Amino acid sequence: MHSLIGTYRFNIDAYTTDFRGKATLPLMSSFILQVATKHAEERGFGYSVMTAQNKAWVLSRMVIEMFEYPKNDDQLNVKTWVADANKLFTERCVSFETLDGKQIGFARTVWAAIDIETRRPTNVLELEGLSDYKVEQELPIIGARKIPAIKDQEPVGKFTIRYSDIDINGHLNSMKYIEHFIDMFDMEMFKIKDIRRFEINYTNEAYFGTRLHLYKKEETDSTYILEMKNEDVVISSSRVIWE
Amino acid sequence: MHSLIGTYRFNIDAYTTDFRGKATLPLMSSFILQVATKHAEERGFGYSVMTAQNKAWVLSRMVIEMFEYPKNDDQLNVKTWVADANKLFTERCVSFETLDGKQIGFARTVWAAIDIETRRPTNVLELEGLSDYKVEQELPIIGARKIPAIKDQEPVGKFTIRYSDIDINGHLNSMKYIEHFIDMFDMEMFKIKDIRRFEINYTNEAYFGTRLHLYKKEETDSTYILEMKNEDVVISSSRVIWE
Repeated sequence: MHSLIGTYRFNIDAYTTDFRGKATLPLMSSFILQVATKHAEERGFGYSVMTAQNKAWVLSRMVIEMFEYPKNDDQLNVKTWVADANKLFTERCVSFETLDGKQIGFARTVWAAIDIETRRPTNVLELEGLSDYKVEQELPIIGARKIPAIKDQEPVGKFTIRYSDIDINGHLNSMKYIEHFIDMFDMEMFKIKDIRRFEINYTNEAYFGTRLHLYKKEETDSTYILEMKNEDVVISSSRVIWE
Repeated sequence: MHSLIGTYRFNIDAYTTDFRGKATLPLMSSFILQVATKHAEERGFGYSVMTAQNKAWVLSRMVIEMFEYPKNDDQLNVKTWVADANKLFTERCVSFETLDGKQIGFARTVWAAIDIETRRPTNVLELEGLSDYKVEQELPIIGARKIPAIKDQEPVGKFTIRYSDIDINGHLNSMKYIEHFIDMFDMEMFKIKDIRRFEINYTNEAYFGTRLHLYKKEETDSTYILEMKNEDVVISSSRVIWE
């Protein structure tokens, strides 16, 4: 049996950082997807086993809190473990640590195991081995909260889903949602603040050629609600807290 | 002294592939940028040495030919070496190989060493050590060719440069040009063909908030010329050969 917690090392390359030389939120989310993929694959409930059972992991919700963003040339250890599992969902946690063990950020992610054909959830507990890897460990960030719908507002942006937006499951790539969301903020915001906490709900799938509209509302000072809609259908919503 | 040729291993993770389960061209180009960064850094003419001299490497032209795209879960070795260096430019070559040594693709890249303040080219030959790493090796793909200007045509698309498009040098990220270019093609094209050869000229820098227009012209059957313009100024042009 593999260790309960998987630890993976990453390097922040210059060409992946933003204009401030800091790792971007989509990059941090790509680390989360990478470690989730590897951890599950190594332990027998990853992509290849799922595919053989006609199933796929689908990310349903994610919360990322960064107390400090790694910079160009930094190395970091990304730890991940299964925190919980019930019939409908499994929760996977992630901790971002510097090489000397300082915890600089955390993530909580919630996944469903869908049937590839019907796109309906299957019973997560049927996945052999997954429950054996459950780790009880407190995480110093709160989980996903309700994100209120934005009503009676005009869209502030739009985009059409292209080739590069689409993942292996044929729908909008989980990282691309985040990219489109954070691109709703001006450079000036990034010059004076950092995204301290990012919450996202992956509500509905979206496909090639779909035109999505973007909505933005200031909830409280430095906290924004963002929404991505295909006509009246919410595809994804997000809460972004700046500090 | 390090080996002349640097070899780096990569894994094609499911979440980085396109809807066909194949590595994308922006992903292949990110491998090129990664190995270029690492190879140069390890040999003393990389990002940190350049920054200390107030210089930066700027990608000027790139040609990628893929005979076969790696697929989800494949591993590949990416080899890179300095092929040439003169006052104005250095040419760096890349070879993509399967773990059993099959060469599945190649790239030729041309870089200038600019002064960070003036944005003007500096003498590449002044970079200590670089010429010592020159490798004479034939590459089975031809280098960059002239890409004709597109005239008297209406744009077929447009986009505004956002936070995620911007790199550490403050301008449009080299991979993002490629992403915006290949997103000009329909999914149907990717269903029946592959991009066999991709040529790109990075002509002018582009910054946050700039609105760019995209142009597309069929040069010959399955060969397209693409252009990205800020008003009348060409920012980048590309030739895409499908097969």
